[in-house]
Amino acid sequence: EVSLNAQLLMRGAFIDKLMAGVYTLLPLGFMVVKKIENIIRQEINTVGGQEMFMPTLQPKENWQKTGRWESLDVLFKTMLGQDKEVALGPTHEEVVSPLAKRFISSYKDLPFALYHIQNKFRNEKRAKSGILRTREFIMKDLYSFHVSQDDLDKYYDQVLESYKKIFKRVGIGNETFVTYASGGTFSKYSHEFQTLTDAGEDMIYICDKCKVAINKEILEDQKHKCPQCGNEQLREEKAVEVGNIFKLGTKFSDPFGLSFKDETGQEKPLIMGCYGIGLQRLLGTIVEVCHDEKGIVWPENVAPFKVHLIELSKDNEGAKKQAEQLYNELVEAQVEVLYDDRVVMAGEKFADADLIGCPFRIVVSAKTLQEDKFELKKRDEKESRLVSKEELMSLVAG
Amino acid sequence: EVSLNAQLLMRGAFIDKLMAGVYTLLPLGFMVVKKIENIIRQEINTVGGQEMFMPTLQPKENWQKTGRWESLDVLFKTMLGQDKEVALGPTHEEVVSPLAKRFISSYKDLPFALYHIQNKFRNEKRAKSGILRTREFIMKDLYSFHVSQDDLDKYYDQVLESYKKIFKRVGIGNETFVTYASGGTFSKYSHEFQTLTDAGEDMIYICDKCKVAINKEILEDQKHKCPQCGNEQLREEKAVEVGNIFKLGTKFSDPFGLSFKDETGQEKPLIMGCYGIGLQRLLGTIVEVCHDEKGIVWPENVAPFKVHLIELSKDNEGAKKQAEQLYNELVEAQVEVLYDDRVVMAGEKFADADLIGCPFRIVVSAKTLQEDKFELKKRDEKESRLVSKEELMSLVAG
Repeated sequence: EVSLNAQLLMRGAFIDKLMAGVYTLLPLGFMVVKKIENIIRQEINTVGGQEMFMPTLQPKENWQKTGRWESLDVLFKTMLGQDKEVALGPTHEEVVSPLAKRFISSYKDLPFALYHIQNKFRNEKRAKSGILRTREFIMKDLYSFHVSQDDLDKYYDQVLESYKKIFKRVGIGNETFVTYASGGTFSKYSHEFQTLTDAGEDMIYICDKCKVAINKEILEDQKHKCPQCGNEQLREEKAVEVGNIFKLGTKFSDPFGLSFKDETGQEKPLIMGCYGIGLQRLLGTIVEVCHDEKGIVWPENVAPFKVHLIELSKDNEGAKKQAEQLYNELVEAQVEVLYDDRVVMAGEKFADADLIGCPFRIVVSAKTLQEDKFELKKRDEKESRLVSKEELMSLVAG
Repeated sequence: EVSLNAQLLMRGAFIDKLMAGVYTLLPLGFMVVKKIENIIRQEINTVGGQEMFMPTLQPKENWQKTGRWESLDVLFKTMLGQDKEVALGPTHEEVVSPLAKRFISSYKDLPFALYHIQNKFRNEKRAKSGILRTREFIMKDLYSFHVSQDDLDKYYDQVLESYKKIFKRVGIGNETFVTYASGGTFSKYSHEFQTLTDAGEDMIYICDKCKVAINKEILEDQKHKCPQCGNEQLREEKAVEVGNIFKLGTKFSDPFGLSFKDETGQEKPLIMGCYGIGLQRLLGTIVEVCHDEKGIVWPENVAPFKVHLIELSKDNEGAKKQAEQLYNELVEAQVEVLYDDRVVMAGEKFADADLIGCPFRIVVSAKTLQEDKFELKKRDEKESRLVSKEELMSLVAG
């Protein structure tokens, strides 16, 4: 593995590589992804998204209707039964549009928004950048349905704000820029959320006044100016796209005949929006942003455990007991603790704690027992210090 | 749809059919599956299972090693890139075995158990029985690794007990029988969990003394006798397999060269077990067991909502307000409420409440307002009754 995110995540046993572009989430990595997933779920529920679960196997006819059976070169295909070709979902417009058609008939049914958190499959020519671009990955994709462009615009802005909250909560808010991108047929712009990192495949152009960016694709059209304030001093940076939101308009309503009756009984086409976040890419991006030369430095909200407890008792029964007692008290106080009581050298335990990157490291040893203290170090601090049990608990269980 | 489970679940908007054997979980169905999933997760965590997430796309070489690339006729295949064939996981022994090999070297690493809750793909010739047998479904599959047959036997018994708890908690404990089945090469028996229902594809033979059964496959070998007490009075019943547990022995350790060093430094083959539960099948089975002529009668632990609140205010502003206030109070008390404030006929609302099948139905109307009471009916009771707010809250929020 050449990419830093996959190197650190594999060395720390967060992920395991099965094939090029296909990874297992090991228990530690699964914990982080579940935390990311729950943050996304909370924010998307807050903007009225209803969670569901759509299939991976999708009918060829649906993909032919939108012209993407032939045009989408990353589409995986397989045979259902002996003679029926189907797609493996790389995204779900081809399922959610005909589904919505069955449940929407009147303006009274609108607006509404459906989402799911489900594996996606993309037959990338060259899987690279570790887990930033893979062939199989979990994605949160939200789809919204509206009576008008105005109503879509309002909802789109709400989702944009909820995305900002998501990236802030997972710990990369400062590095993530709302980035203007091409809007396609139905609106002037769409928006990407781009996170600054050298591992990024994209170049973005930041306006430091507005704290927004534009992507390379529309740089010429924008005449190298900020779309908000006209600033021409744009700063070029490498970045990775961690989310995008898009006004679909009637791109999918049209082929699937998706319409509703308005107040006057007139049949009108539905207006749609779509909003995606790839979970493994987000995981990898957090690692690219939050690490040092020793390993990962997890933001507290997505750390697999809050505390990494190291027991260095050797043959000191008292220290061993103290470590076990502290572990039990932390668990009792509902603090998530990774307890390292292996019989290995202290250096190995410290190196692993730095690699795994939990926010707090606590050491219990003969020395700390003697002083009736605990050694505490935050992952992002250089020095450890001795603290009393009381201080310790108020810091980590507060 | 001819099967009762799919009929009720589709009419109640729990699921939607995309193709033969491929279904979307709609928001209501997703809620039920999440509750089932969480019950399973709790019980499997209790027996020490560590949750992870393995991929769907799996290397051909791994399936060739076990001989299942050719022999497993339900195996979906697709092309990765231009020239590399891969399988879509119908199960995950071919991934978890080589994975475990990388992390296990000594007896000190054992025993341990890994599981995930992940989509499975099986190219069934004929998808039938609604969601009891589908081509894509979520499965919990647990894999355990042991130093000896003895150690496996102990763990296997623990999982057997945890499965009993799972089926009891989801509401089909009384109808579900531990069923002796063929054990393959490495043990005399494996065990299926079979739930009595006319929708079942299997026949089982119940010993009413021991409350266990044997499956058809081993009926002759068992000479039509209960394997526990020798009872020859076995009762034949139709049933559906909702879970199975299996001692794999070295079936997968051998092809993948999975071994460990014992206390004396000797290299020995690992002993494995596997344990599965299909979530949609369980969902469908619960519906087959728990319904009446009007619709589904959800067991409380897996009901999408505890309370179905029907507002019949018509033009009575007071009743409307009272319904809204009750709704807010229930939500405040963390009771899950489905609130039907649609402007449709009362009969339609009652029919939908019966179809959807939440445990408690509450009606607020001009009449209940006048008496300062609420109309309460349990889904499995015939008659409704008027109760005070106090009594209501103690019954549903208790």
